[in-house]
Amino acid sequence: MTYCLAIQVDEGIAFAADTRASAGVDYVTSYSKLHCFETNENILVALLSAGSLATSQEVVSWIRRDLQQDNSENLNRFTRMFEVAAYVGRVSQAVQASHRAGLQASGVNGQATFILGGQVRGEPASIYLVYGEGNFIRSSADTPYLQIGETKYGKPILDRLVASTLTLRQATRLAVLSLNATIKSNLTVGTPLDLGIYRCNSFRRLVTSRLDSEDAYYRAVNDGWNEGLKQTFLSLPEFEWAEPTVK
Amino acid sequence: MTYCLAIQVDEGIAFAADTRASAGVDYVTSYSKLHCFETNENILVALLSAGSLATSQEVVSWIRRDLQQDNSENLNRFTRMFEVAAYVGRVSQAVQASHRAGLQASGVNGQATFILGGQVRGEPASIYLVYGEGNFIRSSADTPYLQIGETKYGKPILDRLVASTLTLRQATRLAVLSLNATIKSNLTVGTPLDLGIYRCNSFRRLVTSRLDSEDAYYRAVNDGWNEGLKQTFLSLPEFEWAEPTVK
Repeated sequence: MTYCLAIQVDEGIAFAADTRASAGVDYVTSYSKLHCFETNENILVALLSAGSLATSQEVVSWIRRDLQQDNSENLNRFTRMFEVAAYVGRVSQAVQASHRAGLQASGVNGQATFILGGQVRGEPASIYLVYGEGNFIRSSADTPYLQIGETKYGKPILDRLVASTLTLRQATRLAVLSLNATIKSNLTVGTPLDLGIYRCNSFRRLVTSRLDSEDAYYRAVNDGWNEGLKQTFLSLPEFEWAEPTVK
Repeated sequence: MTYCLAIQVDEGIAFAADTRASAGVDYVTSYSKLHCFETNENILVALLSAGSLATSQEVVSWIRRDLQQDNSENLNRFTRMFEVAAYVGRVSQAVQASHRAGLQASGVNGQATFILGGQVRGEPASIYLVYGEGNFIRSSADTPYLQIGETKYGKPILDRLVASTLTLRQATRLAVLSLNATIKSNLTVGTPLDLGIYRCNSFRRLVTSRLDSEDAYYRAVNDGWNEGLKQTFLSLPEFEWAEPTVK
């Protein structure tokens, strides 16, 4: 399984992904699910991927090839981010279609889902979720985050703390905490984490960083959060009841 | 959907359940999923139920009938809790089998899952999860809780805070927080909450309480937790990075 998350705040976008890939519990490996692209100064695009590793790797390879060959359809040619989302969806559908006969023969699902984020000059930064079916949604000011993969364990902390008005550093910290909650509750999501940070209107490469479980920052956040939750829990009021009479 | 939880600590057992029952989003009603039984002084049994409401209601009805008629198989006759779990599983299988033709014709799944908790004289208190298939597991000292229904949102907080050494009052508070996290993240789980509290070796009726969303204790826990999480989040260290060079 996988857990990927993007949080969009006024200052920019924080991307985070675990790196665990598994085919059953006895073949567990590590792959980056955060993909950056060498685009020109008018567009910045990053992708997070979940689902079939074969599909997501091939989708990223076709997108890179289109870009490197300057094909008629490639990341540098788009002037709106929703067009990029539609393009990623089309490439994903084409990859799945090319393997459909083989996948169906084995009863395997080759779907992959993507979070697309970045900025096209002339538009604000934005994040999109591209479904396995190729269609897509974008985040809203009320719900300024998108998740793919094993999303449920990391959602409660987002629902309590996320807001468009967080600083980009806070959004990054929140993404780390959401990943950390998922890793604690689900074996199929694991460290190291990949982080990507984009500052609005910079059109610069993402700042990327990999945090393993012994990373000092990761440990500080993990330990500080555990301790803070414990202290908060202990400070909450007691539920009072009267012991019942003997039946 | 449903979320039910039982936490077993050294002092006793805390049971908690939401009360939302839904058939789609446009037929949402409220049902208690915490079931107590009028057993004798040698056994105390409570059930939490999730899944098909028709199945779980009928299972509880048959268990009550067996008890009231003092049938050869009824709650008062068991001397080990695992036998009670096996009995609940058998009744559940019998109910499902009696409706199988009708359910299969409509393509409907009539499964229900149960958490069984309580104590038989001569044994320590214990909690069991009875699967839809009728088999069952019990909790362990390392993982002293069991969940059924929509379990993922409420699991991270348990994984950070649960321990057999919590007081019974703390276990009750933790159960309320786990329900609260689920309610915030998932529309199909809703207030009011039903709480049940059993003190080991008391063999007295469960202390039960219903908390709606305006209940003073529920609000105090919700608000205190939100505020504590926010303050903890703000106190965590910043993730530092250098802004990248222009590409």
